[in-house]
Amino acid sequence: METPVFHPVGTPVLDLDTPALVVDLDVMDANMAELKRLLGRSTAGIRPDVASHGCPTIGHRQLAAGSPEGAGTQFNGIRVNTVGEAEVFAGAGFNDILIANPLVTRTKMARLCALARTTKISVAVDDANNAAALSATARESEVTLGVLIAVDAGSGLFGVAPGAKALSLAGEVARSPGLYLWGLTASLGWSNSPRVTSEGSQTSGPGQTANDSTNRLQEVVETSRQIQAEGIDSPVVSLAGVVDYQQVANTPEVTEIQAQSFGLADYNQCLHQPGFSPAPKILAGVISHPTEGSAVLDAGHKSTGPDLGLPVLEGIDGAQATRFSAEHGILQLEDGAAGQLKPGDKVWLVPFDLEMCANQYDYIRAVRNGKLEGFWPIAARGRFS
Amino acid sequence: METPVFHPVGTPVLDLDTPALVVDLDVMDANMAELKRLLGRSTAGIRPDVASHGCPTIGHRQLAAGSPEGAGTQFNGIRVNTVGEAEVFAGAGFNDILIANPLVTRTKMARLCALARTTKISVAVDDANNAAALSATARESEVTLGVLIAVDAGSGLFGVAPGAKALSLAGEVARSPGLYLWGLTASLGWSNSPRVTSEGSQTSGPGQTANDSTNRLQEVVETSRQIQAEGIDSPVVSLAGVVDYQQVANTPEVTEIQAQSFGLADYNQCLHQPGFSPAPKILAGVISHPTEGSAVLDAGHKSTGPDLGLPVLEGIDGAQATRFSAEHGILQLEDGAAGQLKPGDKVWLVPFDLEMCANQYDYIRAVRNGKLEGFWPIAARGRFS
Repeated sequence: METPVFHPVGTPVLDLDTPALVVDLDVMDANMAELKRLLGRSTAGIRPDVASHGCPTIGHRQLAAGSPEGAGTQFNGIRVNTVGEAEVFAGAGFNDILIANPLVTRTKMARLCALARTTKISVAVDDANNAAALSATARESEVTLGVLIAVDAGSGLFGVAPGAKALSLAGEVARSPGLYLWGLTASLGWSNSPRVTSEGSQTSGPGQTANDSTNRLQEVVETSRQIQAEGIDSPVVSLAGVVDYQQVANTPEVTEIQAQSFGLADYNQCLHQPGFSPAPKILAGVISHPTEGSAVLDAGHKSTGPDLGLPVLEGIDGAQATRFSAEHGILQLEDGAAGQLKPGDKVWLVPFDLEMCANQYDYIRAVRNGKLEGFWPIAARGRFS
Repeated sequence: METPVFHPVGTPVLDLDTPALVVDLDVMDANMAELKRLLGRSTAGIRPDVASHGCPTIGHRQLAAGSPEGAGTQFNGIRVNTVGEAEVFAGAGFNDILIANPLVTRTKMARLCALARTTKISVAVDDANNAAALSATARESEVTLGVLIAVDAGSGLFGVAPGAKALSLAGEVARSPGLYLWGLTASLGWSNSPRVTSEGSQTSGPGQTANDSTNRLQEVVETSRQIQAEGIDSPVVSLAGVVDYQQVANTPEVTEIQAQSFGLADYNQCLHQPGFSPAPKILAGVISHPTEGSAVLDAGHKSTGPDLGLPVLEGIDGAQATRFSAEHGILQLEDGAAGQLKPGDKVWLVPFDLEMCANQYDYIRAVRNGKLEGFWPIAARGRFS
């Protein structure tokens, strides 16, 4: 794991050793306020997708900030991707955890049931055999598992088709001992963005038009109505991949948003949602200046996670990050930047995709007003199973 | 970190939970033998690049296998990229460690000197100011640091130009108290491969022609001769990025090869060096089969590390891995594969680039004859600083 070179609270951020993943808390707070402003008086809760950062300290702050205006009580839910992540966050005091993926192996189902003894937990299901296996495991374990039917709203991943197929699966789950049908979960498509080429052309956007998104949302909501019309209790419509928050705010059937970057906007989000600013950044150090036109950073794939897009160098005219190897980032220096950026200098990179970036680190350095406030463990890093 | 769901030695590999990074030890042994065969009776030692896997257990096996035919004694050297990796491997008993990157921050130079008290350690330098700072730190710490001049042999990263500039820097290092000039290090260009697009077109190869490589090698060797002709002791020529091992075998001035994948051939290496077979693979599980033409795996970016190229599905006619999200891989199923691969099935993926893949895991599952032999910690994972 990352070498823990800790610095005392109050250390100026530029004195941190490099590379370092830093979160600016003032920016995070402002982004949280902006998302709540966009939702207005919607009663939809914000269920932070903590898999995007893996840090319980941040998760607790997101929950505290995320209660809906109209709800009156604090909303306690988070979304994770794996049972391993659920274990970490349950251990850190979270008590309403949605695992928004199917779990199919015996080991993972057994771990899920062990968690369900102490934590309100729900899991996504898109397959009748999987529902039957979960039911059997829950009964053996003497627990009740919450289940959300994963509806395919165009993400191209998993999920049953909306309408009849989802209705049929919901009926099976509702009839299965050991299972309790909570409702539906779907991704509207943010994660369906066209992938950015590794050469770094960052032309990707949410892989949907406004019309697509409206149609998908309506299909999910209609499916929820159909289930309820059958007399089946199905109180939850939980949406991931939301790009247009105001659309959701105008759809009262939506009970919660699995907010991928609640407060922690990455470059990709800021590109498409101008109300947000990047809170997470990577502090990188120049280690070489081999030619007038280039400099080499100590931050490469292993500390930036550029799978979905290259991190973007912040605010140096004439300089840009053009290529990353395992351990290094290459800056191209033109015009006023030529000949600048000598070994020992420090620069800021904005991660294109936070989830891939945070998953490379074991700690987030929390900073406010340019000074270190804390070294927060990314306790769920690597909990991919 | 990765959830440690351990299984007893002897567990059949297909009973491991998914996703899992598995190394087949028989394949690893055969690959090691093949590299030694290619080197013939060369006296160049093989210095395993342990940053490519981060696993001390594998590093010890590589050292045991890597002593040159003509050397008589065991060769003890490894190559790492960072002082954090050096700390882990020194703690695991390695006593000759080359950090093949410049270290420029005060913190990292201090850590380097602390290591030098107990371990034979050398570091790459490409800048006179950096050499001066290392000299000052070494003197304060009362240690002697080994230094290799990093020569730019076309990698496009760091390094001084071969010839006069390298000669001048070598002279400065040789005159600096606290430093000892070991010689030269250079990358011939394997890491200079054109980057694979994230859409997965795997047409990349070593970014060099045979002529380029010969010219680069000759420039490095000639620079070493020039330094020695000045009466400066410079015994080492240590090469990374070697694609043509037999070329090196025919160049007696080369004292060692920083072998990136000694035994652990990834898909990229196997594509260009047909004598090797993939020893590391990812065991992945099918979690959904949403349509006849697709299946979803539980292995995505976070467990395959596809930055430099998509992992390749092994041996299922009509099925191929086409897209990866953070947690999932999407298989396209055609012809005989359509309708196959149901939830619960397991498949094998070959990582395109081992270093990016291994850096996602905390353990390697070592397997021989289809049975688990050990759970080996990737102790240097994430030691990027």
